[in-house]
Amino acid sequence: MKAARLYEYDPELEGQEFLKVEEVPEPEIEAPDDVIVRVGGAGVCRTDLHIIEGLWDEALVVEPPYTLGHENAGWVEEAGSSVSRFAPGDAVVIQPALSDGTCLSCLRGRNNLCESLVWIGIQQNGGFAEYVRVKERNLVKLPENVEPRDAAPYADAGLTAYHATKKAARVLDAGDVAVVIGIGGLGHIGVQVLKALSPARVVALDRSEGALRLAEEVGADHVVNSAGDAVDRVLELTGGRGAQAVVDFVGEADVPARALAMTRTGGYYFVVGYGGEIRVPTMEMIATEKSIVGNIGGTTSELHELIALAGEGKVRMNVRHYPLEEANRALLDLHEGRIHGRGVLVP
Amino acid sequence: MKAARLYEYDPELEGQEFLKVEEVPEPEIEAPDDVIVRVGGAGVCRTDLHIIEGLWDEALVVEPPYTLGHENAGWVEEAGSSVSRFAPGDAVVIQPALSDGTCLSCLRGRNNLCESLVWIGIQQNGGFAEYVRVKERNLVKLPENVEPRDAAPYADAGLTAYHATKKAARVLDAGDVAVVIGIGGLGHIGVQVLKALSPARVVALDRSEGALRLAEEVGADHVVNSAGDAVDRVLELTGGRGAQAVVDFVGEADVPARALAMTRTGGYYFVVGYGGEIRVPTMEMIATEKSIVGNIGGTTSELHELIALAGEGKVRMNVRHYPLEEANRALLDLHEGRIHGRGVLVP
Amino acid sequence: MKAARLYEYDPELEGQEFLKVEEVPEPEIEAPDDVIVRVGGAGVCRTDLHIIEGLWDEALVVEPPYTLGHENAGWVEEAGSSVSRFAPGDAVVIQPALSDGTCLSCLRGRNNLCESLVWIGIQQNGGFAEYVRVKERNLVKLPENVEPRDAAPYADAGLTAYHATKKAARVLDAGDVAVVIGIGGLGHIGVQVLKALSPARVVALDRSEGALRLAEEVGADHVVNSAGDAVDRVLELTGGRGAQAVVDFVGEADVPARALAMTRTGGYYFVVGYGGEIRVPTMEMIATEKSIVGNIGGTTSELHELIALAGEGKVRMNVRHYPLEEANRALLDLHEGRIHGRGVLVP
Amino acid sequence: MKAARLYEYDPELEGQEFLKVEEVPEPEIEAPDDVIVRVGGAGVCRTDLHIIEGLWDEALVVEPPYTLGHENAGWVEEAGSSVSRFAPGDAVVIQPALSDGTCLSCLRGRNNLCESLVWIGIQQNGGFAEYVRVKERNLVKLPENVEPRDAAPYADAGLTAYHATKKAARVLDAGDVAVVIGIGGLGHIGVQVLKALSPARVVALDRSEGALRLAEEVGADHVVNSAGDAVDRVLELTGGRGAQAVVDFVGEADVPARALAMTRTGGYYFVVGYGGEIRVPTMEMIATEKSIVGNIGGTTSELHELIALAGEGKVRMNVRHYPLEEANRALLDLHEGRIHGRGVLVP
Repeated sequence: MKAARLYEYDPELEGQEFLKVEEVPEPEIEAPDDVIVRVGGAGVCRTDLHIIEGLWDEALVVEPPYTLGHENAGWVEEAGSSVSRFAPGDAVVIQPALSDGTCLSCLRGRNNLCESLVWIGIQQNGGFAEYVRVKERNLVKLPENVEPRDAAPYADAGLTAYHATKKAARVLDAGDVAVVIGIGGLGHIGVQVLKALSPARVVALDRSEGALRLAEEVGADHVVNSAGDAVDRVLELTGGRGAQAVVDFVGEADVPARALAMTRTGGYYFVVGYGGEIRVPTMEMIATEKSIVGNIGGTTSELHELIALAGEGKVRMNVRHYPLEEANRALLDLHEGRIHGRGVLVP
Repeated sequence: MKAARLYEYDPELEGQEFLKVEEVPEPEIEAPDDVIVRVGGAGVCRTDLHIIEGLWDEALVVEPPYTLGHENAGWVEEAGSSVSRFAPGDAVVIQPALSDGTCLSCLRGRNNLCESLVWIGIQQNGGFAEYVRVKERNLVKLPENVEPRDAAPYADAGLTAYHATKKAARVLDAGDVAVVIGIGGLGHIGVQVLKALSPARVVALDRSEGALRLAEEVGADHVVNSAGDAVDRVLELTGGRGAQAVVDFVGEADVPARALAMTRTGGYYFVVGYGGEIRVPTMEMIATEKSIVGNIGGTTSELHELIALAGEGKVRMNVRHYPLEEANRALLDLHEGRIHGRGVLVP
Repeated sequence: MKAARLYEYDPELEGQEFLKVEEVPEPEIEAPDDVIVRVGGAGVCRTDLHIIEGLWDEALVVEPPYTLGHENAGWVEEAGSSVSRFAPGDAVVIQPALSDGTCLSCLRGRNNLCESLVWIGIQQNGGFAEYVRVKERNLVKLPENVEPRDAAPYADAGLTAYHATKKAARVLDAGDVAVVIGIGGLGHIGVQVLKALSPARVVALDRSEGALRLAEEVGADHVVNSAGDAVDRVLELTGGRGAQAVVDFVGEADVPARALAMTRTGGYYFVVGYGGEIRVPTMEMIATEKSIVGNIGGTTSELHELIALAGEGKVRMNVRHYPLEEANRALLDLHEGRIHGRGVLVP
Repeated sequence: MKAARLYEYDPELEGQEFLKVEEVPEPEIEAPDDVIVRVGGAGVCRTDLHIIEGLWDEALVVEPPYTLGHENAGWVEEAGSSVSRFAPGDAVVIQPALSDGTCLSCLRGRNNLCESLVWIGIQQNGGFAEYVRVKERNLVKLPENVEPRDAAPYADAGLTAYHATKKAARVLDAGDVAVVIGIGGLGHIGVQVLKALSPARVVALDRSEGALRLAEEVGADHVVNSAGDAVDRVLELTGGRGAQAVVDFVGEADVPARALAMTRTGGYYFVVGYGGEIRVPTMEMIATEKSIVGNIGGTTSELHELIALAGEGKVRMNVRHYPLEEANRALLDLHEGRIHGRGVLVP
């Protein structure tokens, strides 16, 4: 089969040939709970660029050459002997973080915190290929009206946004305001999830007018260009109080400070993006009784929920398709900011 | 190995030889996640009597002769190739309800509601034997200071009590009162769990003075003989308001009606015992905004928590040991009301 | 001022003159936290008919003649000396159940369970009049785009529906189904609240095709005529599992039994309507781990939330206006089934 | 009556006569919900020293001379005409933060976040006197076995500790570990509340051996001197994982950083003490999905709960009594570190 494989790191991303598209043997069932999935689409993610740069060197347990791709969807091709919930032909999206199912976090339904996660496309061969081998435990069925090549980015970008905004929805009552900072691949899903799960008015913040237009299209009640004084504008929209929930998909530069400044007394700041630092006096945390909440990935049950929303038309993912052969063009487009939404490789 | 096996039903429990203790082949590893456990103790439960009576005929998918015993603990003897969390020699207690780990209930951490549960000792050979075959997913490690033969009944009696009283603890604040009805194998654990997990005062109700003494020994703040007017007594102990939580391990005759009558406005009636019927006017449910909450089994993460409490000495199980050879005597003692707490077969 | 007052009970509702519209003295400020509200609208409720029938005789602490009307909205006319949050001219809706603010339920934010509630229009003069005296604690401000005469029924019908469906929304995830039984004055608000607060698909049940059309207009995803086999239809719509939440605004005849039958394992049956009885074996409560949840009225903070939804256009109340002078015609229309939605008296 | 009043600030606390104990007129009922309380005890708090230093100058709305004392308990002497829940002679503890009862925070039961709080002893005359005027809404009844002069510090020190540790208890399951940092007036209550409300093992951290002995006396499972490497010790006590909840009553210097370092993946850091700064990379918040939770004061319903615990002997406050005349000696002892637990002025 064809696969796009990484041979060596490119720390400056200066090459044009990050991956080599070549013929490799098809994966085979090795354990009773293995499933071979024929790939319908594989999302291209900034994490792929970081892997190519070598930033994830230590986390990678496979030796190059290996196949990238952690946002995958497709159809079950073959199922191991103990697989009971899926049959060949089933359309599925693949939870990229394979959890063990037996640690206390998994048993509590928080498998995003599994003590021994293995990432498909990072710690074993991924979906930039015609076939990928996964476990039954990774799979979530797709409804008939959702195509694998459109659904692939729900596996990671969508799920991460869902996980954080579902937590936010739990603290939002009617009359409250939620702010979403950063309307990219994750943020535009975050806006939609907040609208679907909570009665809050949603304010979208971004520096790009294109991103703000996307926010409006997917249902934001207000959009604010964060190049201006976004804190004042949010205070204005909330009667001077600030927002009950601020979900930050940026997490760097002055964003954490501004995010906290626009969070109301008793409110919550949800951190999803990263790269920067949070600095806050303990006095401020106390006087305003705020909470700062970290977020990582999402659980497989949350992926079920997100896919249900997609099937009911309550969220939609903006995607741009590339043939698998053009994996490098997709990576380059992402690197150079030419992808709006999410690029997806289609074998 | 030796095993106590059921050959035919005894609808009136008139025999003296319910089970036949005989030599059978030892179980063997068949799948990569199989684990063979050397049995240290196997609790004897009323459900075993019901199986012998033939009441569970339809639920049983194995053909007699087969080995009973669903409350098991012991030591790992041999582990399949994919087992990573347990090694030979580990002391373990066995969650009797094997969940699939992939349905939405399991993924949400509610594996007591798994859509395809298989019960050890009911739907496959159980622990009235020297060895039993289970899955890695069934196992919970025991701390050093808890012996398998003392811990076995936590697997079912203890876990069921823990599941219901943990729910109760979530609605109990300091100053509240909780009532436990029925201080048997489950109820005496329920009292201890409420004391460990909540600040509520705990009132124990039973018709037997022996049971009430046991309740006092394990920490009940008040005991009330339910032969008298228990409703009035609970109202008296709660300033006329009733209890915030009533946990009913009886569930038959006039108990549900009395349980609701002693539940306060805005309070909760937790149903664990069964056999009877709840009858309540919708007007009463509304005027007093009560909730009635059903409870079944417990999750594997709850079994972890209960075993932690046992290890820390916050709960203890009253047990009486019998050699495996005397399985029939243990069943008879249970049937004829001679076991106080829980009987455990020791191979 | 004009007021519609009750002089004597009419147990069979045979008269044409239930209330006498006459001149009475205007209410005056007596305590520092008193507020005089100029009535803009007063909803006509089935409870008013029950009061006229004499069913509430014992609960009524005022001697006839007195003024009915517990669903009121209007404008602040005059405020006592300690009133700080409201000023003359403010448009307000009036929480009908005056709570003390000092009992433990009030302090916990559950003032629908206040230990010493006093109902306006039941235990003191109500809003079938030009002016009504209330406490500052009863008032919730209306947004500019919501007229008092349209908002009055939110005070009771709307709030009761909101309280129950907000509880339901807390147990509903994406992919779940909620059923609303009875699409009248309360139910049509319930459908809208579920759509606003949760991602669940909403199924509306009623015996009247007109009610089902209203359900569709306000956003129900599916409508089912309960004259047919509604249980089977709900099972069909839920893949055989049943609904995660069933909110019952009827509560009599065979509705509770059918409501429980269409509730899924682990699901919740919310009781709002009354008149009938719930009968359920404890075995069923346990085997399916269901919960039955009573509901009464709503809290003042929930009234704030509901009014926020109304201001944002997320819920709307179907109303029909009558001049105050025609109070008896409105009551008669209600009694004889001619009001679709809610009748409102306008002074 | 006698009262200890502040005339002028002493920025360096160099004087011996911070307050002047003198004769002043007794307070009188002015509004229907006013209550005059005969003071039984008034706690001496570090905040009193800060007021004397002039740090609270802006927050103080009363002109000196005025009477300090915000941690008060005593007996109802006289009650205004609308007071219904209290009568002369009732023993009471006084919530120092008078909330309005009508803002959305109050209506939701979070009156610690009331939008218009007025503090007794800070913004109006306090309890360093024979009598103090409060509102009915401030009062919580004391059980018979709790003396006002022993209960006074529950009003603020106890309540603040209760509020934060009750939040912590909600995220603690059996088998979890909670850390309390700083075992002073608040922390020694925090340890007891965690033991009463949760099944967690409690680890107490302090630099003072005396404080650690107090922690052991009140029930801590482990004590760790924070002069050594407390982070390593907590990791050791938690199998290398860290604590599920860390409650920090210090909040300055390197404590926040160390507190976060000993919080486990998915765990919670509760901030109560203040003075320092929290600095954390967004990457760390995400990778470990931690939460940082601010805490301020406590609600009146929580004061009810804490007093219930005190009445049942589940918490006890370490106090040292001083005659009111010796207010300055008590303040000096506090300033110079001679009070272990809490000093209380007794008129």
